[in-house]
Amino acid sequence: MANPVMQTIEGPAALPAIFQRYRADIGEALRLELSRDQPRVYDMLRYYMGWADAHGHPSTATEGKALRPTLCLFACDAVGGTPRQAMPAAVALELIHNFSLIHDDIQDKDETRHHRPTLWAKWGVPRALVAGNVLRIVADMALERLRDEGVDSDLAVQVVQLLTDAYLSMIEGQYLDLRYEGRRDISIGQYLDMISRKTGALIRCATTLGAVIGTRDEATVSALNKWGRSLGYVFQIRDDVLGVWGDEETTGKPVGADIRRKKNSFPVVYAMSAAGQHDGRALEKIYNQSQISDDDVSVVLDVMGRTNVREHAQSLAAEHCEAALHELSSVEMEPAIRDEAEELVQFLLVREH
Amino acid sequence: MANPVMQTIEGPAALPAIFQRYRADIGEALRLELSRDQPRVYDMLRYYMGWADAHGHPSTATEGKALRPTLCLFACDAVGGTPRQAMPAAVALELIHNFSLIHDDIQDKDETRHHRPTLWAKWGVPRALVAGNVLRIVADMALERLRDEGVDSDLAVQVVQLLTDAYLSMIEGQYLDLRYEGRRDISIGQYLDMISRKTGALIRCATTLGAVIGTRDEATVSALNKWGRSLGYVFQIRDDVLGVWGDEETTGKPVGADIRRKKNSFPVVYAMSAAGQHDGRALEKIYNQSQISDDDVSVVLDVMGRTNVREHAQSLAAEHCEAALHELSSVEMEPAIRDEAEELVQFLLVREH
Repeated sequence: MANPVMQTIEGPAALPAIFQRYRADIGEALRLELSRDQPRVYDMLRYYMGWADAHGHPSTATEGKALRPTLCLFACDAVGGTPRQAMPAAVALELIHNFSLIHDDIQDKDETRHHRPTLWAKWGVPRALVAGNVLRIVADMALERLRDEGVDSDLAVQVVQLLTDAYLSMIEGQYLDLRYEGRRDISIGQYLDMISRKTGALIRCATTLGAVIGTRDEATVSALNKWGRSLGYVFQIRDDVLGVWGDEETTGKPVGADIRRKKNSFPVVYAMSAAGQHDGRALEKIYNQSQISDDDVSVVLDVMGRTNVREHAQSLAAEHCEAALHELSSVEMEPAIRDEAEELVQFLLVREH
Repeated sequence: MANPVMQTIEGPAALPAIFQRYRADIGEALRLELSRDQPRVYDMLRYYMGWADAHGHPSTATEGKALRPTLCLFACDAVGGTPRQAMPAAVALELIHNFSLIHDDIQDKDETRHHRPTLWAKWGVPRALVAGNVLRIVADMALERLRDEGVDSDLAVQVVQLLTDAYLSMIEGQYLDLRYEGRRDISIGQYLDMISRKTGALIRCATTLGAVIGTRDEATVSALNKWGRSLGYVFQIRDDVLGVWGDEETTGKPVGADIRRKKNSFPVVYAMSAAGQHDGRALEKIYNQSQISDDDVSVVLDVMGRTNVREHAQSLAAEHCEAALHELSSVEMEPAIRDEAEELVQFLLVREH
């Protein structure tokens, strides 16, 4: 196969070292923002972040991998900046991401995430909705620390505006996702536009903010923005693959989960467009049902097999990996840092969770 | 009765002239922020604001009275500032207020507001939730216009921080309101703390932002902050009175609406604390039921009658009116402006909608 990235498809992938490098600092900074005692909504938020049980007592549930803050700090590092200065932005990104998950859980009626009950499942929709809104505003407040870290006012204002724009784009993407629900005529182009907002905006913003805080060189910032853009596609397309074929143990979701939930993810959008007449009618019929049975899931998986959906998804993700590596090549950075950046790109293509 | 304010209780109250003065400018500025075409979520928002029907076509549904932006612009005027400079803050306040109503409707399962179906009732919870989040972020973006209006960066940052703090306080108040649901031991003190956040924070912020943009004099800003604080109590306590005894035609809610919804509003909190043993048990029994019948509403209204709840509510609101008038007396302003400020205070005590 001509594409070198393709050769690593589906191999087991260890979390790259850069996740480990920033983890402790990110964890500490996040906890600082959510250290308030009253009202009790902060207990709910610490529970959601995986630091506390439902009664507010410390717990050691698995935390997420903190992709967005890691990308932000790493981008700042890579362009020669001081990652500490980017920490308020990194924290805000992670809090906004979690805010959106809390509201997503409500929208999708998801009762578990990371193997634990979601907020609405535990405390009801009204409180979960408000808790999400609190987290959203705590994210805004985290940015007030930028100036404490020596970021000047003009740059701080720019950071706020970039994050605001990204956040709006993310919410608009969520809206498009909802609008597309139940529609069977979504093109790959519409799908890509939707994920570039829903998921891409915040990931792109993460690398852009790290860069803009770390350097004044516009070409470098632009390259890292494009790097983030490509990473966003890789991340979401791989996420969609895991949503159908991921291992239940690692993803926390059963095989075919996204089929059962009728999510407008790459596999189904692609299968709808590529299936022959017979298979197309079968998909149509199944997706028009209010409930999808295990047998239905098998039928859909068979159609996806015949249309080589999984290979096409990985191939599309691999193209964006190539683009990401290409963007990196225009930026000056230390060889060790470049290796790490490349490792990160490859990881997103093959990650199992 | 010694209290002059009390004498106007329950009289018919025309909307003071200052609402009319700023109305057109506020309307224009709000429309500018929500003028985007795509995605269609902006149609939902224009519908909610009362400017469009459900298909996005212009309509002339009744708009709200725009209390918060009016207070903000008026405060700026009153301290000798240029109201145009406060317009971005005024717009942000109104958008945040409407954002919170969209989410409130979801939380309370309210199907109508201003005599029209609410967003979740029309488009479902997921889209309504996202639409609210879009409106919230449009509010943030409105503040970016402060500098176009000649507000310097430091002041713009201060405005953002004041609004952020007020917004967090509002959300925390909503959370407390939810926590108190179903509890029968809420004291008047807890109730006042809850409304000073849930409703008071944004009203207080409106007068404070107008003042801070209009003058550098800290004593004046502080007086207008306290003025807003008192207005917030008057507004919410009167709102609670209207929620039980308001006229269906003007409020859009049937008599006893807040009793039927078991809202923790002043009338019930007060009645619970003031009722004798027999009446107390009757209330307890009714509020423990999952549904409240018309007969139950009558019983509760009778208990509220025996405990003089309505008079106590108006009397408490009148005390805060007095405080509001007192705060104004320490601020230098033109006599005509002072008359208007006093008229506004009195209006909030007796308004019918």
